[in-house]
Amino acid sequence: MTTHVTRPDSPVRLRATDAPGQPDVTPALEELYRGFERELLVPLWTEIGDLMPVHPRSRAVPHLWRWESLRGLAERAGDIVPVGRGGERRAIALANPGLGGRPFATPTLWAAIQYLMPGEDAPEHRHTQHAFRFVVEGEGVWTVVNGDAVPMRRGDFLPQAGWNWHAHHNATDRPMAWIDGLDIPFQYTSEAQFFEPGRDEIGDAERITPERSRSERLWAHPGLRPLSAGELAPGTPLLSYKWEFTDRALADQLALESEGFGGTVEPGHAAVRYTDPATGGDVLPTIRVESHRVARGAETAPIRTTGSSVYQVFDGSGTITVGERTWSVTRGDLFVVPSWESFSARSEAGSTDSDAGALDLFRFSDSPIFEALRLDRTRTEGTTG
Amino acid sequence: MTTHVTRPDSPVRLRATDAPGQPDVTPALEELYRGFERELLVPLWTEIGDLMPVHPRSRAVPHLWRWESLRGLAERAGDIVPVGRGGERRAIALANPGLGGRPFATPTLWAAIQYLMPGEDAPEHRHTQHAFRFVVEGEGVWTVVNGDAVPMRRGDFLPQAGWNWHAHHNATDRPMAWIDGLDIPFQYTSEAQFFEPGRDEIGDAERITPERSRSERLWAHPGLRPLSAGELAPGTPLLSYKWEFTDRALADQLALESEGFGGTVEPGHAAVRYTDPATGGDVLPTIRVESHRVARGAETAPIRTTGSSVYQVFDGSGTITVGERTWSVTRGDLFVVPSWESFSARSEAGSTDSDAGALDLFRFSDSPIFEALRLDRTRTEGTTG
Amino acid sequence: MTTHVTRPDSPVRLRATDAPGQPDVTPALEELYRGFERELLVPLWTEIGDLMPVHPRSRAVPHLWRWESLRGLAERAGDIVPVGRGGERRAIALANPGLGGRPFATPTLWAAIQYLMPGEDAPEHRHTQHAFRFVVEGEGVWTVVNGDAVPMRRGDFLPQAGWNWHAHHNATDRPMAWIDGLDIPFQYTSEAQFFEPGRDEIGDAERITPERSRSERLWAHPGLRPLSAGELAPGTPLLSYKWEFTDRALADQLALESEGFGGTVEPGHAAVRYTDPATGGDVLPTIRVESHRVARGAETAPIRTTGSSVYQVFDGSGTITVGERTWSVTRGDLFVVPSWESFSARSEAGSTDSDAGALDLFRFSDSPIFEALRLDRTRTEGTTG
Amino acid sequence: MTTHVTRPDSPVRLRATDAPGQPDVTPALEELYRGFERELLVPLWTEIGDLMPVHPRSRAVPHLWRWESLRGLAERAGDIVPVGRGGERRAIALANPGLGGRPFATPTLWAAIQYLMPGEDAPEHRHTQHAFRFVVEGEGVWTVVNGDAVPMRRGDFLPQAGWNWHAHHNATDRPMAWIDGLDIPFQYTSEAQFFEPGRDEIGDAERITPERSRSERLWAHPGLRPLSAGELAPGTPLLSYKWEFTDRALADQLALESEGFGGTVEPGHAAVRYTDPATGGDVLPTIRVESHRVARGAETAPIRTTGSSVYQVFDGSGTITVGERTWSVTRGDLFVVPSWESFSARSEAGSTDSDAGALDLFRFSDSPIFEALRLDRTRTEGTTG
Repeated sequence: MTTHVTRPDSPVRLRATDAPGQPDVTPALEELYRGFERELLVPLWTEIGDLMPVHPRSRAVPHLWRWESLRGLAERAGDIVPVGRGGERRAIALANPGLGGRPFATPTLWAAIQYLMPGEDAPEHRHTQHAFRFVVEGEGVWTVVNGDAVPMRRGDFLPQAGWNWHAHHNATDRPMAWIDGLDIPFQYTSEAQFFEPGRDEIGDAERITPERSRSERLWAHPGLRPLSAGELAPGTPLLSYKWEFTDRALADQLALESEGFGGTVEPGHAAVRYTDPATGGDVLPTIRVESHRVARGAETAPIRTTGSSVYQVFDGSGTITVGERTWSVTRGDLFVVPSWESFSARSEAGSTDSDAGALDLFRFSDSPIFEALRLDRTRTEGTTG
Repeated sequence: MTTHVTRPDSPVRLRATDAPGQPDVTPALEELYRGFERELLVPLWTEIGDLMPVHPRSRAVPHLWRWESLRGLAERAGDIVPVGRGGERRAIALANPGLGGRPFATPTLWAAIQYLMPGEDAPEHRHTQHAFRFVVEGEGVWTVVNGDAVPMRRGDFLPQAGWNWHAHHNATDRPMAWIDGLDIPFQYTSEAQFFEPGRDEIGDAERITPERSRSERLWAHPGLRPLSAGELAPGTPLLSYKWEFTDRALADQLALESEGFGGTVEPGHAAVRYTDPATGGDVLPTIRVESHRVARGAETAPIRTTGSSVYQVFDGSGTITVGERTWSVTRGDLFVVPSWESFSARSEAGSTDSDAGALDLFRFSDSPIFEALRLDRTRTEGTTG
Repeated sequence: MTTHVTRPDSPVRLRATDAPGQPDVTPALEELYRGFERELLVPLWTEIGDLMPVHPRSRAVPHLWRWESLRGLAERAGDIVPVGRGGERRAIALANPGLGGRPFATPTLWAAIQYLMPGEDAPEHRHTQHAFRFVVEGEGVWTVVNGDAVPMRRGDFLPQAGWNWHAHHNATDRPMAWIDGLDIPFQYTSEAQFFEPGRDEIGDAERITPERSRSERLWAHPGLRPLSAGELAPGTPLLSYKWEFTDRALADQLALESEGFGGTVEPGHAAVRYTDPATGGDVLPTIRVESHRVARGAETAPIRTTGSSVYQVFDGSGTITVGERTWSVTRGDLFVVPSWESFSARSEAGSTDSDAGALDLFRFSDSPIFEALRLDRTRTEGTTG
Repeated sequence: MTTHVTRPDSPVRLRATDAPGQPDVTPALEELYRGFERELLVPLWTEIGDLMPVHPRSRAVPHLWRWESLRGLAERAGDIVPVGRGGERRAIALANPGLGGRPFATPTLWAAIQYLMPGEDAPEHRHTQHAFRFVVEGEGVWTVVNGDAVPMRRGDFLPQAGWNWHAHHNATDRPMAWIDGLDIPFQYTSEAQFFEPGRDEIGDAERITPERSRSERLWAHPGLRPLSAGELAPGTPLLSYKWEFTDRALADQLALESEGFGGTVEPGHAAVRYTDPATGGDVLPTIRVESHRVARGAETAPIRTTGSSVYQVFDGSGTITVGERTWSVTRGDLFVVPSWESFSARSEAGSTDSDAGALDLFRFSDSPIFEALRLDRTRTEGTTG
C-alpha cells in the first residue's frame, strides 16, 4: 500500500493545448495531467521549448545603468542608511529587468555600487561567495583582508576569494564609492552559501593606510613566487592589481601592434586577464576579470559566448552594442551582456576627456564556471564558431 | 545629459519596514527606494538574509515519489501521448514542490521516468545537457549513441555526456520504463544550452540488439585503455556500466569488511562511484553517480553536503531520513536530498524480496559542479566538519 | 687572493686536435686546455657533437635475450644461490651491451628474471624504485604488498609503485620464474633512491593464497571506484591486472576491426595500456606498460619514439626489427628498443603454438618520464613526424 | 634451436667474492657467472648495494669554482677560440670531479660560463635542451629568441625552454660573460636530444638593442595575462626576469619579516622562485630557478633534498657548507650541491662590498624532474622529514 505523499496545494499546473507538437486534447489527457499535478510531475513535451532551446536565450536582458544616477542614489543612501552589522554593507545592486526584480545583474553575477562615508567602517565578515572590488573614481578606503590593509584607488582591482575575513574603513574625510562584483546569484541558485560575522570593528593595528598591502609586497612581482608560500586556498593570494600595471600592459600591447608585432586581440583592441600568480588561472574560481582598451576609432568584432558579463566603462567614451541594443557610454556606466547575446564596442574619436581617446572597459564574467564544466562556447561574428 | 534608460514598469519593488537591522522608515528612505525602483536597483540590506544565509537553506524540499504511482502514470502516457519530433521523449519529470511547479527535482538536477512502447523509436537529437539513464526494471530498449547500440537492462547505468547524438528504440514486444537524469535545471539557470535535432529514424544498420555495445568492448576492461583512443571529448567514453560489475563490487566490499579489512565507507555501507576510465574522474562534467548498498540491519551516519542529490531505491526496502522527513521506501521509489539537508538510510531486516536483505540505493548529485568551483563542503553528524 | 680548489688528479683530460670545427692547435690553446683541466672545466666546442646530436643516438644497442637461455641460468641460480636479506632477490638482470656491463637493459630501465624455489620466501623491503612483475609462464607465487597477497599466473601484470612494502612466497612445490621491471637505472642516474628492509618473513596471516587480492576486489571492476578510497599515493592502487581481461580486450579490438568499426591502432594491431583506475594515467610514475597483439600475418608500421622500451614475447612467434637488427622471436624472448631506434613487428603465419596465430607482445617503457617533462616525440615511418 | 645472440667481447665482468651477503664461492658459482657474462646478464645480489642504497649517495661531489679563475680562463678563450657554426658557443662548463671528467656540474645539470667579444655573434640554433642565462656582471649582449631581442644586464635571468630558435649578439665594444644553465646531462642520459642549426647570422631587423623585449612587454606585468596569447608551448613565455623586480621582492620579504609579518622562508632568509606567469609553475619543465637572500649575520638551516643544485653567489660574501665541505665565497663563485647532501649558507657581517651586507645566492636545480615523477623528498635538519 502506498502512502500518499503529495500535497493538496501542488504547485504544478498543466494545461492541455492544441499547440503544434502537443498531444491531442482529450479527456484522457486532461485526466493524465491532473494525475501529474497530484503526483508533482511535469512532462518534458510541454516544457522542452523553454528548457532545451536551440541556443541559449537568456531571461536576462541587455541593460545599461548610468554611473551618474547610480552614484547620486548611493550618495543619498550615504546620508540616510547607516552601515553596520546586519545590513553589513551600503551596497546597491543592479537588478536586471528580465530577472523579476531580484538584485541579479545576470543569472549568475551580482554587481553593486558600494559607498562609505568619511571615517566609517563596514564590519568584518566572511562568506563563501567569491568577490572583488573595482574603483572607477576616488580613493581613501582600505579593505582589510585577514588583517592586511589594502588601499583602493582609481583603476585598482581587488579580488577576494570566498571565506576570507574582510572589512572596510574609510580613512579620509571624503566619501568614496566603488563597484562590488560577486557570484551571489550563482551561489544562490546552486545553494552553496555560508556566511559568518566577524569582529564589529577592526583592530587599531589594522587601521593603517599603507601604500602597498602585504599581499602585494609578497605577490605583485612579475613571475616571482615567494618560497615561503605553502599550499594556498582557492583564489588568488594577490589582493590588489594596481592600475599602473594594467595601464602599462594595455599600452604595451597597442605599441607592439603599431610596431607590427601583434600583441592585441584584434586591431586596436588590447586586453588583459587578471590572473592568480600562483596558478596562472582566473583570480576567482567562479569569476573571470579582464581589462580592455579599444583604441581611438577602433571597433571590436561582435562576439557571442555562453555565460554572462558585466562591464563598466573605466575611461573614455564610445558606443557599445549588446544584442539589439546600442548605447553611447561614458565613464562609470555599467551594462550587462547576457548569455549568447552578441557584443561589440567602438571607441569614439571625439568628445573624450582622455588624451589618448581610447575606450577602457572593465569586464567580469562567469566564464570560469562554464570552462570548468566544459560548457564554454564562443562565436565571433563572421565565423562559423 | 543622461538618457533615462529605465522602464516605467520596473520589476523592482521595495518596501521600507521597521524590521530589525533595517534603516528607519522615513520619507527620505521611501524616496530613496522609489529611486532604486526607477533605476532598477536593489540594496543589499533588504536582501542579505535571503542571499547570504549562515548555511545553505534550500528552496527545494525533501520529497518522495512512489515508483508505483510514477510507473502507473507513465503507462497511461504510453497509451495516449505519442513519441516523436518536437516533444522528443515520453519523459515525465519530478517537480520539487519547493521549486514553483517547474520540472526540477532540485535546483540543478532533472529526474524523469521515460517510457517507450513496443517497437517505438525516440528520435535522434543532441544537446549540451549532460545525461544518463538508469534501469530499475525491465529490458528491451537499446540507446543508439553516435551509431553505437547500447542495451539497457535492470541495474545498468548509461551515462552520456553532452552533444552526442542519441536515439532509443524498443526492440521488444513489451513497453519499458527507465529513469533519465540530466543537468537541465543547472543549464537552464546558467544558460548554457544548445540543442540540435538529428535524423527522425535511426538506420537499419543501427537497429541491432547486441549484448555489449562497442563502447563496452573498447572500454569496459578494468584498468585497460585502448591505445587507439586519441583525445577524448568531455565525459566518459564508456556508455554502459553493467549491473553485474556494480553488484560484484558492492558485494566484494561487504565481504572484505566481514573479513576485517575495511573496504566499506562505514560499517555495513558499501559504495562505488561510476568513473570515466580515461580520467578516473566523474562520468559527467556536472553529475556524479554512485551506487550504495546498506547491509541488512545497517544504518548510515547522517551526512550533509553542499549540493543536491536524487536517489532511487534499486532493491530492498528500508527507512530513509532527509532533514525532518522520514519515509519507508521500497524498490523504484525516488526522493531528493536538498543542499545541506541531512541524509541517512537504514536497511530493514524483514519484509524484503531480496535474499540478502540489503538496501541498494542509486544516487546522482551535482557534486562535480561544487568541486570544480571549490564550493564543496561535507559534514558527517557528530563531527565538526 | 684565490684559494686553489682544484685537485692534482683532475679527471678532466682535453686534447687539442685539428678536427673540423675545432680551434687551431697552438701553444696558447694547449695552455688554455691545461688551465681548464686544472680548474675542472670542459669547453662545449669539444663535446657538442656527443652532447647535442641532431637526434637521439642511444648508447644502448638493440639486443635480444632468449628466454630459454635466461630461464636455464635462472634454474641453475635456483640451485646454488640462496635468497635472503642482503641480496634480497634471486633476480638476474639484462645488461645492454652498449652500457658498459652494468645491469641496465636501457639507460632508464631494469629488466630481470626472478626465480623462486618451492616454499621459498623473498624477504620484505620497500624502495623508491617503481616496479612491476609480469608472468610469462607458470604460477604458484604470491606477492605480498602491504599485507595483501596477490596471486601470479601466466599473463598477469602486477605493478607496484615505489615505497610499498613487498615480499614474495612460493606456495607450491615447483619453482617459478617471472620478469621484474623497474626504473633502477633512471633512479640511479638521477639519484633519487631510498631503500628500507622490512620483516625477514611475512606473517602467517599473510601466507595465504587467495584467488583475488584485496586490491582487485576493491579496484578491478571496470569504471567503478570504491568510495572508501581516500587520497591515494602515487601509482595505481590495483595490484594485479589479470590476463583474462587483457586477453579479452585485445580480442575485442580485433573483432571490432573485423566488423568495420576500427578499435585497433592500425590494421591487425590491437593494443591496450595498463592504467591507474583512479586517474586513467600510467600505472607507475616512471613506467608505461602495454600489451600488444599482432594478428596472424599482420605487420606494424615502423615507429620511432624518444625513450626506450623493453619487450617480452608473451605468445606466438614472429619477426621483430629494431633499427638495423632483425630477429625471429618466440615465447619469452626479451629485447630492447633504444631511444629513437625504429621498431616494427610481424606475426608469423605458421609454426605457432597459438591457435590464433597472433603475436602477443608485452612492452614497458620510460614514456611517462618523457611526457611529464614534455620531451616526448614520436615518428611513424612514412610521415614527417 | 637458439641462435647465440651474445658477443665474445661481453662487457659484463662478474667476480665471485666471499663478501658478506654473497653466495659461497664454488666452481658452480663461477660457472654460473661465466654463463651470465656470456648471456649479458648481471645478478642483483652483487649490485644491490650500489643500485639500491638506503638513501641517495651521489657520484657527484660538493665542489666550488672561483669566479675569478673561471672568468680569467674565459677571457683567454675569448682571445684564441673563435665563435661560430660547429662549436656554436664559447661556453666552458663545470666538470664535477666525481663525474669522470664529463662537463656535468651534477648528474642532471650543465653550468657554463659563456663569453662573447665585442661585436661578435653566436649563431642561431635550437635544441630540446631547456636552457637559461644568468648575468652576474656586465651588460651589452642581447639574446635573440625567435626574433625577439632580449637585453642582458647584471641580475637578469633569461629562461628559454627547449626548441626555440636563439642567437646572441654583443652590441657593445666590451666583452661580456654570463652563466648558462641547461639540462644537457639529463637529456644526455635519458636520450631525448634534438638539435637544429638556424641562420648563421641574425637579420638586421633583429640586431636591435631595446630596453625591454617584446616578451616582457606582453608578460612582465604582475598577475596580468595578455588575452591575445593562445595555447602556449612548454616553458615560460617571459624571456627575461629583470633584477629590479627580484631585488625588490627579496627586500620586501625581509621588510615584512622585520615588521612581524613573516614572508621569509626562515629568519633572515628571503627567497623567490622564478615562475611561468601562464601557469604559476616552474619556468622550465626540467629546471627550477630561485633567488635567495640571506640577511647580514643570518644563517640558513641545513637542508637535504633529492636532486642536485648549482648555486652562484650573486652578491655579498659568506660561508656555505655542503655536506662535509665548507667554503668562504664571494661574488661570482659557483658551487654544486649533490643529491641528498646537506646545504646551509651564512652571510658574513663584515668585509662585504654590499651596503646591506646580505648574501645573495642564485640557485638552479632539477627539482621539477623529481616532483613530476613523485620522487621529491626534503629534510630540514632537526626534523624527522
